[in-house]
Formats: sequence, C-alpha cells, structure tokens
Amino acid sequence: MAGKVFFSVSMSLDGFIAPAPPEHLMGKQWMELQAWVFPQRFMRENLGIGEGGEEGRDNDIVRETFERTGASVMGKRMFDAGERSWPENAPFHTPVFVVTHEKRDPWERAGGTTFHFVNDGIQSALDRAREAAGDRDVRIAGGAATILQYLNAGLVDEFSIALSPVLFGAGTRLFDGVDASRVALELIRSEPSPRATHLTYAAHQR
Amino acid sequence: MAGKVFFSVSMSLDGFIAPAPPEHLMGKQWMELQAWVFPQRFMRENLGIGEGGEEGRDNDIVRETFERTGASVMGKRMFDAGERSWPENAPFHTPVFVVTHEKRDPWERAGGTTFHFVNDGIQSALDRAREAAGDRDVRIAGGAATILQYLNAGLVDEFSIALSPVLFGAGTRLFDGVDASRVALELIRSEPSPRATHLTYAAHQR
Repeated sequence: MAGKVFFSVSMSLDGFIAPAPPEHLMGKQWMELQAWVFPQRFMRENLGIGEGGEEGRDNDIVRETFERTGASVMGKRMFDAGERSWPENAPFHTPVFVVTHEKRDPWERAGGTTFHFVNDGIQSALDRAREAAGDRDVRIAGGAATILQYLNAGLVDEFSIALSPVLFGAGTRLFDGVDASRVALELIRSEPSPRATHLTYAAHQR
Repeated sequence: MAGKVFFSVSMSLDGFIAPAPPEHLMGKQWMELQAWVFPQRFMRENLGIGEGGEEGRDNDIVRETFERTGASVMGKRMFDAGERSWPENAPFHTPVFVVTHEKRDPWERAGGTTFHFVNDGIQSALDRAREAAGDRDVRIAGGAATILQYLNAGLVDEFSIALSPVLFGAGTRLFDGVDASRVALELIRSEPSPRATHLTYAAHQR
C-alpha cells in the first residue's frame, strides 16, 4: 500500500511559519514558535543536543512524524539554508529530494540522509520520493512556497499544523497564494497539548 | 467584580474573518466560515430564522458568548454594514457603543439593543461599555480594525477564535497590523467540536 503525502509545520496564530528578516531562524520569534518542539526527548536525541527531555504527547507527535516519513521533498531555498546549518549528521535519515534547477550529484551525509537533486519539476520529485518511501509516507518538508505548490496542485493528502500561541505580525505566511477555489479542507483531528494545538486536516480538491 | 473585555470571531485557517469583495457577507466563503454557527438552536432563535436546530457543544458556545456579554463595542464600518442588514429586532439585546466621528442621538431598537455613538476614542467607548455591562463582560464586536486597535492598546483580556476548516486566500485578516512586540498570548482552552476548533487565549502585554 502506498503511503500518504503530507506536510507538518508549526504556525503562529496569525499564519506565519517563519519570521521576517532581519530576525533569523533561531531568533526570539522562531524559538517561541517552536517552543513545543525543543524540550522533547525525541528532538533532542535526533539533533544530538543532549540527553533527557519531555516524554508526553508532544514528544509522541514529534516521534510519530519522524517515523512515518520514508522520504522528504524540499525546495531549493530550504536546502540552501539547511546546507549551511544542518550538522554533518543531517536530521532526516532518509532520502531527500530537492526541487532545483541546479544539476548536482547526490550528496550523502552521515546517518542515512542522501540529498537527490531533481531538475524536472515537482511531480517528478514526488514520484521519486514515493518510490524511495515504499509504504511509508512522503513529507513535503518546505519551505512555504514549495508546500503551496504541492497543495495547489492537489498532490497533498493531509497536513498537520502545530498552532503555537504566538503572534508574528510579519514573516513568511504558510498559505500565502493558496488557491482557495480548489483546496477544500476536512478537519480530521484536533489535539490540544500544553504548548500548542495540534490540528490535522485532509486536503481535497473542489 | 468588573467583567472582562473579550472578542470572539470565526477565522479561516489562513487567518481571515471576512471575504474579499466582490464576495459579500452571506456569500459562499462566509457561509463556510460560519458553518458551525448557523445550524445552532440558540442562533436560529436569536435571529428569528426558525425553530429547532442543533443543541451540542457548538450551541452552548454560541449561547455562553451571548449570555456573558453585557455591552458591545464596534467600529463605524461594522455599524454601517449592520444598519443596512440587521433586522428591526437587532441581535445584540444590550447597549452597543459605536466608535465614530459621527454625532448622532442614541438609536433604540426593539428587543433591548440601543446604539450609542461615541466621538472621543476607543478608551472612552470602552469605559462607557464597562459601566453599562456591570458585572458582565464587554465584547469588542468588530470589525477587524477595531479589534486590533483594542488588542494593540492592551485593552483586551481574552479572546476566542472558532477556527473553521476553510481557506480564504484573500479578504480581511484578523491580525493584520498586530503589534507582535507588545501582545503575548497564553492558550487557556482548546476545544474541538464537529465543525470548528474553539481556541481561547489570554492576551498579555510584553
């Protein structure tokens, strides 16, 4: 049985998933947005930033999201930012397909992450990711523009949003440019945790 | 004991509380946004649009929001739109304070709604609403710009958002212009219902 295509992001209550420059990733707003993630035991182990951590429902959600993912797809800008900041032991531990015009040989990292550079569009990148994922799911990792391309094309089956109790006021909006005439949502699950509200939606084409 | 100052709105997952022209109120997007409200028994009775209706948790939330409200505050544009469309028996059944430059005598409607026109700013309108509300709460009824003025000024104690499973893509954003450097949120309650996710936040000043 083929897996699902999904994305999973943390979003501010006003709809942003990344702060505006000059506030960078790892700045104050970003830390507030991700405040539910960083204390979790699974995240700390996966990033190699220390022992211990919380083990409640938030931790289960981080682990389940990781474990269901057989391959990821990401845009060129997310890759470029990550190439500069991921550790040698990149946090994916699966094949990752980068949608890009750049021609480049696969880039293998320690711990099972291999980046493949796909030059013929989002459908092709998804097809290759599906094949690599087998019966596990394909995660559209980001950024927002890449997620929106897949959502508007009707290629996303479901998605999860961790709605954090924070307002950004500016930054990168997840749904900026969504084709609302084509994408209909169905709420599958809504699960409050101490630090965020975990919402899961199925995406349907109208 | 003085009541709280709150607002309560239905918001699309991408952050809109009203559709963009030319889609008007009562259009398709609006009906999807409010789909959790209209079938409720309390709403149908209050609007005089018929007997019966649903009586679950969504209905309780509509009724509780109405019953806690001792007075409302609204902006001039919301009043202007409502003046054309509210029934003779306006749906507030309390004093309503309209923030406006227009000088006008109080306008009394059937069923206990009286509109008062306040010409000296949002603080004054709130003071008058608090006094009228007694120990009940004051609702900042809308629209978005008026809600944001009160929120940015630190005058809102808490607010409720019914997050509907719909994407608008365009329209009026609730938090457009929020002063994120001043407004901090605390999630008080997150309650899934069949048609929406009911989120309640306390607003604090940073």
